[in-house]
Amino acid sequence: MVRTDGRQPAEMRPVTLVTPCTKHAEGSCRIEVGDTVVLCTASVTDRVPPFLRDSGRGWVTAEYGMLPRSTSTRTDREAAKGKQSGRTLEIQRLIGRALRSVVDLTQIGDRTITIDCDVLQADGGTRTASITGGFVALAQALQWLKTERNAFPRIPLNDPVAAISVGVVQNQLLLDLNYAEDSDAMVDMNVVMTGRGCFVEVQGTAEAFPFTRQRLDDMLDLSAKAIQDLIAKQREALGGLV
Amino acid sequence: MVRTDGRQPAEMRPVTLVTPCTKHAEGSCRIEVGDTVVLCTASVTDRVPPFLRDSGRGWVTAEYGMLPRSTSTRTDREAAKGKQSGRTLEIQRLIGRALRSVVDLTQIGDRTITIDCDVLQADGGTRTASITGGFVALAQALQWLKTERNAFPRIPLNDPVAAISVGVVQNQLLLDLNYAEDSDAMVDMNVVMTGRGCFVEVQGTAEAFPFTRQRLDDMLDLSAKAIQDLIAKQREALGGLV
Amino acid sequence: MVRTDGRQPAEMRPVTLVTPCTKHAEGSCRIEVGDTVVLCTASVTDRVPPFLRDSGRGWVTAEYGMLPRSTSTRTDREAAKGKQSGRTLEIQRLIGRALRSVVDLTQIGDRTITIDCDVLQADGGTRTASITGGFVALAQALQWLKTERNAFPRIPLNDPVAAISVGVVQNQLLLDLNYAEDSDAMVDMNVVMTGRGCFVEVQGTAEAFPFTRQRLDDMLDLSAKAIQDLIAKQREALGGLV
Amino acid sequence: MVRTDGRQPAEMRPVTLVTPCTKHAEGSCRIEVGDTVVLCTASVTDRVPPFLRDSGRGWVTAEYGMLPRSTSTRTDREAAKGKQSGRTLEIQRLIGRALRSVVDLTQIGDRTITIDCDVLQADGGTRTASITGGFVALAQALQWLKTERNAFPRIPLNDPVAAISVGVVQNQLLLDLNYAEDSDAMVDMNVVMTGRGCFVEVQGTAEAFPFTRQRLDDMLDLSAKAIQDLIAKQREALGGLV
Amino acid sequence: MVRTDGRQPAEMRPVTLVTPCTKHAEGSCRIEVGDTVVLCTASVTDRVPPFLRDSGRGWVTAEYGMLPRSTSTRTDREAAKGKQSGRTLEIQRLIGRALRSVVDLTQIGDRTITIDCDVLQADGGTRTASITGGFVALAQALQWLKTERNAFPRIPLNDPVAAISVGVVQNQLLLDLNYAEDSDAMVDMNVVMTGRGCFVEVQGTAEAFPFTRQRLDDMLDLSAKAIQDLIAKQREALGGLV
Amino acid sequence: MVRTDGRQPAEMRPVTLVTPCTKHAEGSCRIEVGDTVVLCTASVTDRVPPFLRDSGRGWVTAEYGMLPRSTSTRTDREAAKGKQSGRTLEIQRLIGRALRSVVDLTQIGDRTITIDCDVLQADGGTRTASITGGFVALAQALQWLKTERNAFPRIPLNDPVAAISVGVVQNQLLLDLNYAEDSDAMVDMNVVMTGRGCFVEVQGTAEAFPFTRQRLDDMLDLSAKAIQDLIAKQREALGGLV
Repeated sequence: MVRTDGRQPAEMRPVTLVTPCTKHAEGSCRIEVGDTVVLCTASVTDRVPPFLRDSGRGWVTAEYGMLPRSTSTRTDREAAKGKQSGRTLEIQRLIGRALRSVVDLTQIGDRTITIDCDVLQADGGTRTASITGGFVALAQALQWLKTERNAFPRIPLNDPVAAISVGVVQNQLLLDLNYAEDSDAMVDMNVVMTGRGCFVEVQGTAEAFPFTRQRLDDMLDLSAKAIQDLIAKQREALGGLV
Repeated sequence: MVRTDGRQPAEMRPVTLVTPCTKHAEGSCRIEVGDTVVLCTASVTDRVPPFLRDSGRGWVTAEYGMLPRSTSTRTDREAAKGKQSGRTLEIQRLIGRALRSVVDLTQIGDRTITIDCDVLQADGGTRTASITGGFVALAQALQWLKTERNAFPRIPLNDPVAAISVGVVQNQLLLDLNYAEDSDAMVDMNVVMTGRGCFVEVQGTAEAFPFTRQRLDDMLDLSAKAIQDLIAKQREALGGLV
Repeated sequence: MVRTDGRQPAEMRPVTLVTPCTKHAEGSCRIEVGDTVVLCTASVTDRVPPFLRDSGRGWVTAEYGMLPRSTSTRTDREAAKGKQSGRTLEIQRLIGRALRSVVDLTQIGDRTITIDCDVLQADGGTRTASITGGFVALAQALQWLKTERNAFPRIPLNDPVAAISVGVVQNQLLLDLNYAEDSDAMVDMNVVMTGRGCFVEVQGTAEAFPFTRQRLDDMLDLSAKAIQDLIAKQREALGGLV
Repeated sequence: MVRTDGRQPAEMRPVTLVTPCTKHAEGSCRIEVGDTVVLCTASVTDRVPPFLRDSGRGWVTAEYGMLPRSTSTRTDREAAKGKQSGRTLEIQRLIGRALRSVVDLTQIGDRTITIDCDVLQADGGTRTASITGGFVALAQALQWLKTERNAFPRIPLNDPVAAISVGVVQNQLLLDLNYAEDSDAMVDMNVVMTGRGCFVEVQGTAEAFPFTRQRLDDMLDLSAKAIQDLIAKQREALGGLV
Repeated sequence: MVRTDGRQPAEMRPVTLVTPCTKHAEGSCRIEVGDTVVLCTASVTDRVPPFLRDSGRGWVTAEYGMLPRSTSTRTDREAAKGKQSGRTLEIQRLIGRALRSVVDLTQIGDRTITIDCDVLQADGGTRTASITGGFVALAQALQWLKTERNAFPRIPLNDPVAAISVGVVQNQLLLDLNYAEDSDAMVDMNVVMTGRGCFVEVQGTAEAFPFTRQRLDDMLDLSAKAIQDLIAKQREALGGLV
Repeated sequence: MVRTDGRQPAEMRPVTLVTPCTKHAEGSCRIEVGDTVVLCTASVTDRVPPFLRDSGRGWVTAEYGMLPRSTSTRTDREAAKGKQSGRTLEIQRLIGRALRSVVDLTQIGDRTITIDCDVLQADGGTRTASITGGFVALAQALQWLKTERNAFPRIPLNDPVAAISVGVVQNQLLLDLNYAEDSDAMVDMNVVMTGRGCFVEVQGTAEAFPFTRQRLDDMLDLSAKAIQDLIAKQREALGGLV
């Protein structure tokens, strides 16, 4: 099978990380994965959610949104509809969990770091791009806390974290699905992994065709390798910060 | 490690499936997994969502809710707060996807089957219990369509589907976590699988401690076996319907 | 006229009170009145609404909901629609007022007792069943406050309270209307009364046919007797607590 | 006991009905009951709610609102809060039921008549004033349908309908409670009655003090007389229309 | 061109200011401009919005609403729809800004004065009538603060403020457009001005036909004169208070 | 007075128009005015709002949003709050009116063109930048309709339209206020004008200091000149399309 954009089955799209990319945020990263473009910012505020009050722990959370015309046909604006869709809530919960998994929250103090991931242009893989780009913005915000606020002697990150999608299309394993491939996939999997090669999140879903254990193993193998490439790019973009 | 309820690490809680359990619904099942109790009903309506109009395909969807005092302290009623939480939306999307994966929607016609899963009492594992019990209600509703509506000559189910949780608590692999164990888990995984042993959904999440491939493999092995036990109970409850 | 379920005009449906019926709540009662089934729980929280702050008085309030398929055709979930209907709000205000009328709120202290009444299966009379079952859950929660919290030397209940419906169908007076009768009623009345035979709430509504004073008197007579039977069942369920 | 405004216990406040009172509506009435002022308008639209579609029957419904500073301290605007309170919904359901009880809906055709009752100044009894004034607006709108639309040869009203409150304050029976009396009442009752002396709605509520049957009978007697006075005023305002 | 109501192009409709016009509010004014009727009340509360806390400054704000049948066909109630329209929010922001421009907020202390402008009958120019009438209510509330609360030795108003609309209909300049004229206007302008003849707000909008600088100058000239007439009426209604 | 960024009082910030700037939209323009960056897209859909159905006229409308961290401190996401602010609604209504003023809607047919203006980075003047950039996106979408859909022989634009702000800071007239200047302004004015020098919208607001006619005239003069410069840039970006 030839992929629509000419890639090999195990080939990722070109990835660009531009950082910083906005003047106001404590950390920011514009990530491009093929035609998918996500603007990730990290904002530090000096308070924690109610359930952490007086706990001595800080918080890292994420919000996700798509510009109305980031998609091939216009999607109604969630602010105008008056609520965020289940998909949006599910994605931002995933991004938040993924990023929290590598931070030592006890070092953050009474602060919340909010990672906003806004999709400027969508072509599949926006949630994994948000995690990969969001990590870069997060690392910068932690660096800002270290240098501008003396919040800690070294930034409290245990490991980098990045994410990739993998799927089965027309019975073939493909890495990093674009939108057309994703719409066509029999199985769709998102893998979030750390620099040391441990899993943070594994979400595999059969779209109509349940999959075997062998297929699952192959998808995990393929994604593990790709994530190390992404982490190398994160390290480069962050100039040795992590 | 001794589990709080005396179980072995690889031991499920007692499971009861009561069906039918309500007079109005086309299908219904009350599932008890230890102290977790979920009331699942299947409702047939003669219309499909807009995106399926004129497609000739039917739809299966799910909704999930918890009674305010199904939990150990009272949870605010979502109807009173005016919106469903991200957790609720995420769970009901999962249940819907899981059940759709084993139904031949082209046989359903211009109909929607809505599976309502309402938690009467919660003690961990409500989403997996909802899938296991929801399948029973769904199968009955399909049987009702066959016998009462002559909708199809045989019910369009490819395979039974059931779900279980597995996790890592204090570094030990445990099957079917109760609420106390779940709150304490380093890793939490939900596995949805069919009677033929294929995966429908795999969702593993590290809570602060990323996990190795070996750990992931062990969790998948443990859950695969348990799911076949659940499917045997579903077959028994359905009296050979599937 | 023969009633659809063979009852005499002045005959109530069989009533069952199961208590306790859930493991988490401070009080609970599953009430069945014919095919109507309501799960009532009482939850104690250590705060009061803003308007009672620093008043030294506690509060008793109620919330009401119907499971989507408690009804003969599926009703949309209020949490999904994003608001509670006028009917729901009206019913839960009625339940709350009825239960408060027999409690000495000055004894409750800075606490709120919330009675959740969730209809598992509906066949008419859900609001009156909620009051009758809710009282049992409330009495238990007060007993819990007495024994587990030493909140007061004796539980601050002045009298039991219960409720019944009565109506006029095809010009005949009927007690305890089921759903079919209620849909057909010319007059529909809900009566809430205490063990000493005093009224707490009287709500009579003409559906298209205004009714005479004589009719009103007859309805009051009929309901008064039935409520004493319900209160006897409450006392029995509560084992002499009230 | 002397009443705060010097009235006798069985004495209503002065009632004024100004009709028509606005230039756009098909019917309108400004009702003043002491310091309570409600603006009632009737609007005719050429459609019915979904549940009446193709039924051949029309509909009469009501909406109720209070201007933010109709009350002694400012009440937040429901439009700004984004929802109507339970009290508002309960009142407008009551007004709608009361007015529908005297209309022959089969004569209305595919039309809805909406009665808007907006409280310009509140001093107790706004819901009963809304019914009394709303009937006048409704009768005019029906007259407009007859003369301007030839909708029917005679207006399809079976009887006038009006409403009054009665209550027990400091153990004394009082007619037509003002706000101060209402806040102090042990029992509060609203009675809706027709010109022929039949009941449309009876709502009696004990505020902390359950009441006897004798008390109930006295309240009904007192209100019946007052309502005939109100109906005489309605007839006068309508110039013999009913 | 003859205007539908016989006015000259530069002629305002008759204006009446009735004040006070309600018993509860600290200030109130019923303004009638032709068939447009707006009830304006001023309510004083002893708190300020969060952004002014501990600033020593008070606040003046406005809310605006239309009764459902103030318009020629019924408009849905914003409280029932669950949100205020963009038009409503825009108008109430305008009224608030206009009134704040003449108040010395540093004299108000920790208080908010809320001006509610509710349209009882609409025939064009409701936003400008709200400003003109709202100023009268505001001045009275300030007088109440001075005499009843000793809040300040003289009321902290720099100047009266009033507003008028002006527009171009069928290429002719018209003052104070009624609804029919407004619907037909090529240009629509609202001017808010002080007693000393300074501008507080100028909002001119081309409806399909962009307008020249000369046209703009003519509209400003015409409105300036009219506003001084309105301010004379405000002074008269306030009995020399400003 | 020296401006914070060294500009002369009558000097605009550098303006860049990048077009097209996104792959999916029928028209798009990224406008940068100093540090303010707005992404404008134009989306064509084949339907009109209800009030234009069967009118033969099309519609042009706008929506506006700010990314949460486009501002110097993070602003809550409107989608998460569940409603758009009054400011947002007011701005998008302004953009829509401004763009409609130069389009011949009778040529658009049963189509709606939605201009989405999303602020990626804010430093004052986002609404005027949205109009200027939105026009470019709109013109492209019309060109797309002409060439890809043969919707009309020439694009139905009467004139280009652009907008600029002007204000008074520390008593000095300044063109094109940045955020710091805007926060400090005594008077703030937005002017929308066409290529032929006619006004589409004039909105001048006194922030606490009412302004004279002379001041108003000076502001209009200053903005008129600047808008012609903006229109020259639009023409250049559009390559002679208008």
